[in-house]
Amino acid sequence: MSIAETVSTDPTLAGPYQLVQQFYARQMRLLDDGRAEEWAETFTSDGVFNANAFPQPVVGRAAIAAAARAAVDDYARRGIQRRHWLGMLSVRPGDGEELLVGSYALVVETPRGGTPEIRSSSICDDVLVHEYGTWRVKDRQIRRDDIRPGA
Amino acid sequence: MSIAETVSTDPTLAGPYQLVQQFYARQMRLLDDGRAEEWAETFTSDGVFNANAFPQPVVGRAAIAAAARAAVDDYARRGIQRRHWLGMLSVRPGDGEELLVGSYALVVETPRGGTPEIRSSSICDDVLVHEYGTWRVKDRQIRRDDIRPGA
Amino acid sequence: MSIAETVSTDPTLAGPYQLVQQFYARQMRLLDDGRAEEWAETFTSDGVFNANAFPQPVVGRAAIAAAARAAVDDYARRGIQRRHWLGMLSVRPGDGEELLVGSYALVVETPRGGTPEIRSSSICDDVLVHEYGTWRVKDRQIRRDDIRPGA
Repeated sequence: MSIAETVSTDPTLAGPYQLVQQFYARQMRLLDDGRAEEWAETFTSDGVFNANAFPQPVVGRAAIAAAARAAVDDYARRGIQRRHWLGMLSVRPGDGEELLVGSYALVVETPRGGTPEIRSSSICDDVLVHEYGTWRVKDRQIRRDDIRPGA
Repeated sequence: MSIAETVSTDPTLAGPYQLVQQFYARQMRLLDDGRAEEWAETFTSDGVFNANAFPQPVVGRAAIAAAARAAVDDYARRGIQRRHWLGMLSVRPGDGEELLVGSYALVVETPRGGTPEIRSSSICDDVLVHEYGTWRVKDRQIRRDDIRPGA
Repeated sequence: MSIAETVSTDPTLAGPYQLVQQFYARQMRLLDDGRAEEWAETFTSDGVFNANAFPQPVVGRAAIAAAARAAVDDYARRGIQRRHWLGMLSVRPGDGEELLVGSYALVVETPRGGTPEIRSSSICDDVLVHEYGTWRVKDRQIRRDDIRPGA
């Protein structure tokens, strides 16, 4: 990949860029607000959510919703507010109208009456598709920075 | 609220989005630079600044400036540099030309010769109005994540 | 500087804003991925990289690449993943087609098997120029928040 491709300033991507930022803002807010099922609707019905911290990928919106519901309820029980920050977005065109979005992700956790801490730092690689006037995640791959092959 | 509304990709909001990002960048920089009075000018003259950490709302630009000045001087005295990060912005149209902006906010504090720490994680809900070629905050509601109703 | 200049919403800057965001995303990813030489190509051949933590400015792409390579190799040896977050961007036109970009920068470090920590909080002041269809950094000034003149 040439440097021009790597840090291209292709203006045709200027439009989608802030739409994708806003999509992530709303998507993460749903999860952090405990609205697990609505959050899962931001994935396609056959969407894949994988992470290097998972034993295996979570496949399909129903399974994604169930996994998110379990996590959300657990955090609520422990009185911890999560905040998912996605930033440093890099948007590239994929197949057809798909968008390939790479980003950095921080999870900040604040216990009730306590101090915020960064729980994890990750890379998030998404394939976004356009459905019914909104974006949906078709494939999400999360790689947490603390989980890496040994030296 | 339907999922389409929740994660809408309405392109008419694409223009304002980065303007609002830039507005926050400059607004927060003023505060973090200790320019409390100029920061207060980014509120309307009858602006409201409320937070779940406050005993009561601060109302009007003069009161907002005075409160910011006291905080800024206190941080300077203690040799602590604050940085307000606003991100994960969600922009929606409000009444007339108003914009409703929800965001995540982190306050990172660095003591002279010390290590940065996240002091607070919050939700920021703003009503922005357009005045004299710039945005101003008409109403700001801050909810710190550590201050929440008990389980 | 008037408040209007300080928090201007000049729509002619709306276009470049997200391009600059994307530029930083890709630039920082190169560095965090250990691709020091490609990262250095995002500076002009006579680019300057200065920081209040440096004994003297690093001048020229070759010297910038060498300094980055040394740092990147050191982090790899110690099993630490760095993530550079640039945010709160303020973009102003400079001389000719130059852009002056002020931003906040956090460096988040995660050791293998460990917990993420914010290593530094800084101000980043860049002069960007347009070359061969991409942006390049002509001058970068980093001021870390922990290094400041005494009270």
